[in-house]
Amino acid sequence: MSGAAATRFSLNQATIKFASLTEAVDATVAAGIPSIGLWREPVAEFGLQASAAYVRDAGLRVSSLCRGGFLTAVEAGARAAALDDNRRAIEETAALGAPALVLVVGGLPAGSRDLAGARERVRDALGELSLDARAAGIQLAIEPLHPMYVADRAVVSTLGQALDIAEQFDARDVGVVVDTFHVFWDPDVLPQIARAGASGRISSYQVCDWNLPIATDALLSRGYPGDGFIDFESLTRAVAAAGYEGDVECEIFRQDIWDAPYPSVVETSLSRYRELVEPYL
Amino acid sequence: MSGAAATRFSLNQATIKFASLTEAVDATVAAGIPSIGLWREPVAEFGLQASAAYVRDAGLRVSSLCRGGFLTAVEAGARAAALDDNRRAIEETAALGAPALVLVVGGLPAGSRDLAGARERVRDALGELSLDARAAGIQLAIEPLHPMYVADRAVVSTLGQALDIAEQFDARDVGVVVDTFHVFWDPDVLPQIARAGASGRISSYQVCDWNLPIATDALLSRGYPGDGFIDFESLTRAVAAAGYEGDVECEIFRQDIWDAPYPSVVETSLSRYRELVEPYL
Repeated sequence: MSGAAATRFSLNQATIKFASLTEAVDATVAAGIPSIGLWREPVAEFGLQASAAYVRDAGLRVSSLCRGGFLTAVEAGARAAALDDNRRAIEETAALGAPALVLVVGGLPAGSRDLAGARERVRDALGELSLDARAAGIQLAIEPLHPMYVADRAVVSTLGQALDIAEQFDARDVGVVVDTFHVFWDPDVLPQIARAGASGRISSYQVCDWNLPIATDALLSRGYPGDGFIDFESLTRAVAAAGYEGDVECEIFRQDIWDAPYPSVVETSLSRYRELVEPYL
Repeated sequence: MSGAAATRFSLNQATIKFASLTEAVDATVAAGIPSIGLWREPVAEFGLQASAAYVRDAGLRVSSLCRGGFLTAVEAGARAAALDDNRRAIEETAALGAPALVLVVGGLPAGSRDLAGARERVRDALGELSLDARAAGIQLAIEPLHPMYVADRAVVSTLGQALDIAEQFDARDVGVVVDTFHVFWDPDVLPQIARAGASGRISSYQVCDWNLPIATDALLSRGYPGDGFIDFESLTRAVAAAGYEGDVECEIFRQDIWDAPYPSVVETSLSRYRELVEPYL
């Protein structure tokens, strides 16, 4: 493994979920990684301005902020609260100097089976939030989630569907996340990556693997690149060919990785990136 | 609830997995259900000709036989064995008087991450098997499985993808299964149902619900219609509008349903069908 810097690698903070903001930043810097993907909760805990200063003083880029979204509520009060929360998240994204706010759009409201309606409400909400994103100079990044999360997390399940929504707005304001875990299964994924890149809508490229069996908590089924079933070469080549020049985040939710020491997790994430992703960028 | 016969309802035998062939047929007849979906293993246990005679004497239709498929092997011997097994399944389908053989196409071979290659091998295998299906007078029914099974069960994940393969063959020989559990999440499902119907390729319509959390054995996450998140009205209306006139199978894999007495399972399946599916056919 070369000792040269992985100049486009970003550690998503969720990969070391239990680290504080400062611990995550310190572990990232210690590994020679130039960028970090932040989450709102640890940022809020340390303070927004303090976090922005700490990251800046550490010399790190912020590749994205996770996350906004949850835009499917029917009830007016819940809908207004969601929009307000997303407006705060947009402000935070700008304050941290991140280019994009990742959106998990939300599942079905309690008792509802109306996927089409929920999807329309997502689009309508983006119509409002895209103006705030423009004002703040950041891009809203719709993350299609694996279809196993359609009922409870995200009614947007494919890259094509995310782009059908995003393309109703200016590309400066609304893009999409390409997360290998969520999209690798899609027979249409390569042309949709090309489509996303052609209009400048790849907001973020996130890498982690699809492992089996599906974890008891289905959110935690991810793994280090190389431990599962995903072909990172074809996906990474497609993202590169589509013109994406941003950072590549490693974002893993997995209990045994969360339970491991931060430095070893960071080192393994980095080495897998260098082996399985970086050669194809 | 009307006492009239549910003239298009079929009990898929897997819903009472531990019943023998004769127990499953008897339970179906006792409930006044006119049709049954059979599985190869219990049929083989009772004997193919004996099963065919028992079902015929009971006055039941056989709506489908489950299942063939697993067509993704690379190694020549394994591939030939899979083709031979599917040819036997085609013969069994014809002997039982079922119109269609359900195909679960198979996942990635051990150690492989090449989804595109596996998908090509499925298509190539169908090129051979479609001739056998024609000779036997039955339809091969490609079942797209939910994308959470892409790595280990079926590299065909959407109705559109299944149709892209099926349409390379004569509609008499190759169709698709519309199983609500597998396809409900798909933003493109309604137009793809219409597309399937327009070319006479809806081989089977199967109903069960998507429940959460995903079961520890992910195959067992299904439930009775009405217990989960699926809107049966929109899917059933689309299947009917597409011209499908065949039986509607209730096929549920779920431990607590398998553990319940057969008559109560059959009764609940039938009553949910009458309430949530039949009105929209």
